[in-house]
Amino acid sequence: MSKEKLSIVKIGGNIIEDEAALQAFLKLFSNLKGKKILVHGGGKRATHVASKLGIASKMIDGRRITDAETLKVITMVYGGLVNKNIVAKLQSLNTNAIGLTGADANSITSVKRPVKTIDYGFVGDVKQVNHQAVNKLIEANFTPVFCAITHDAAGQLLNTNADTITSQVAIGMSAIYDTSIYYCFELNGVLKDINNKESVVKHIDSKIYKDLLEQGIISDGMLPKLENCFDALQNGVHTINMGNTAMLTQENDNFTKITL
Amino acid sequence: MSKEKLSIVKIGGNIIEDEAALQAFLKLFSNLKGKKILVHGGGKRATHVASKLGIASKMIDGRRITDAETLKVITMVYGGLVNKNIVAKLQSLNTNAIGLTGADANSITSVKRPVKTIDYGFVGDVKQVNHQAVNKLIEANFTPVFCAITHDAAGQLLNTNADTITSQVAIGMSAIYDTSIYYCFELNGVLKDINNKESVVKHIDSKIYKDLLEQGIISDGMLPKLENCFDALQNGVHTINMGNTAMLTQENDNFTKITL
Repeated sequence: MSKEKLSIVKIGGNIIEDEAALQAFLKLFSNLKGKKILVHGGGKRATHVASKLGIASKMIDGRRITDAETLKVITMVYGGLVNKNIVAKLQSLNTNAIGLTGADANSITSVKRPVKTIDYGFVGDVKQVNHQAVNKLIEANFTPVFCAITHDAAGQLLNTNADTITSQVAIGMSAIYDTSIYYCFELNGVLKDINNKESVVKHIDSKIYKDLLEQGIISDGMLPKLENCFDALQNGVHTINMGNTAMLTQENDNFTKITL
Repeated sequence: MSKEKLSIVKIGGNIIEDEAALQAFLKLFSNLKGKKILVHGGGKRATHVASKLGIASKMIDGRRITDAETLKVITMVYGGLVNKNIVAKLQSLNTNAIGLTGADANSITSVKRPVKTIDYGFVGDVKQVNHQAVNKLIEANFTPVFCAITHDAAGQLLNTNADTITSQVAIGMSAIYDTSIYYCFELNGVLKDINNKESVVKHIDSKIYKDLLEQGIISDGMLPKLENCFDALQNGVHTINMGNTAMLTQENDNFTKITL
């Protein structure tokens, strides 16, 4: 028996920070047919609120460190301000959203990243997605909206990368569903020529990926993203789509579809 | 057929602001048998964060005005910081909590308070508790944790009094359950003598309430609380308990039980 379809859509900070873009996206997301999950990052708002509260952003080797005060800001901004406003807007569009951190419904547990050379602070690496708990919400016709926060099941919230949450939730839910990820970002997709926005590679599979790598076409920024994609595909995710939010219309085919 | 029991427990700011008191309360709440819902206020943390962000608290006739900036702070502090930390702590105590505003699962809709002499800003008066949505979560073995935020179903979050949310949720859920409210506060209960903490009136019903009123025993601060209690009882709530958190142990009978 073939599994029912489930779409996991991820939006980044550039959409969240632009009220008109967010509203337009939420309309597309609401119109997306079938069962679905939204995952959102937080964007620069957390940095902005932190700086207003006098909390300096600590960076080591270009990576943000989540100390106790920064975690509070992230919990306020991602878990409160951004998540609840998205939920309220989706409700007005007749999508019965329910906002979640990984602590809610014990949906995503993680492990505080071990200190090696760098102490990242309260950052969590995903340990388990409780697909049965998430499915109870989906089965009750709710649309889960995840922010980029998980928990260690011992009372500690942890800051977790939104792309990772997206792929881990998709992998976890593939035990029950035929899952597809939609990574919405500012580009139209993976580009053959970084200087030509229209040079979208419409389909990538393992073989094409290898060819693109050999031709040096995959840019540095895209490399880890695509590696994560193939990891998710090898762990049960059916299809991954990358492009701008217009790919959700299903009428637009100008985006990158990635399969094994 | 008698209805199943459901407890709705409300805690205020004095518990939330004291980490040890909060932890002790959450342990009692976790040990409370049967189906249950937690409602929490936000306390002074929102005022503290607002002041750090340079947002002045506007008061008219001693009542707080929720302007757009204040609503953002409330959404960050109540919906994010306080709610998600309570949920994570409950998870560590094996209570499968799920944090909610009224927008989540469209659980509580409200109407922005009409402007008469005072414009309270983004304050909502509860219109409807969607008891079927809340019950889906309870039936799935989740424990809802509500913060003091509702929505107007048109995309707007609204600041709503936590005592009101408690009584309205209890009234709404009484369509399905035999509901009891536990209002946890700093006193042991309704006191005969405001200067004697041990002078708890252990039971109040409509007749005793009338007698206490005639004797002038109900203090000014307690009057609106008790009026709300009798309103809830007349609208389907079975029992209301008022006292300190120790009343949740069920071994302690030193609190006030209120029935019709």
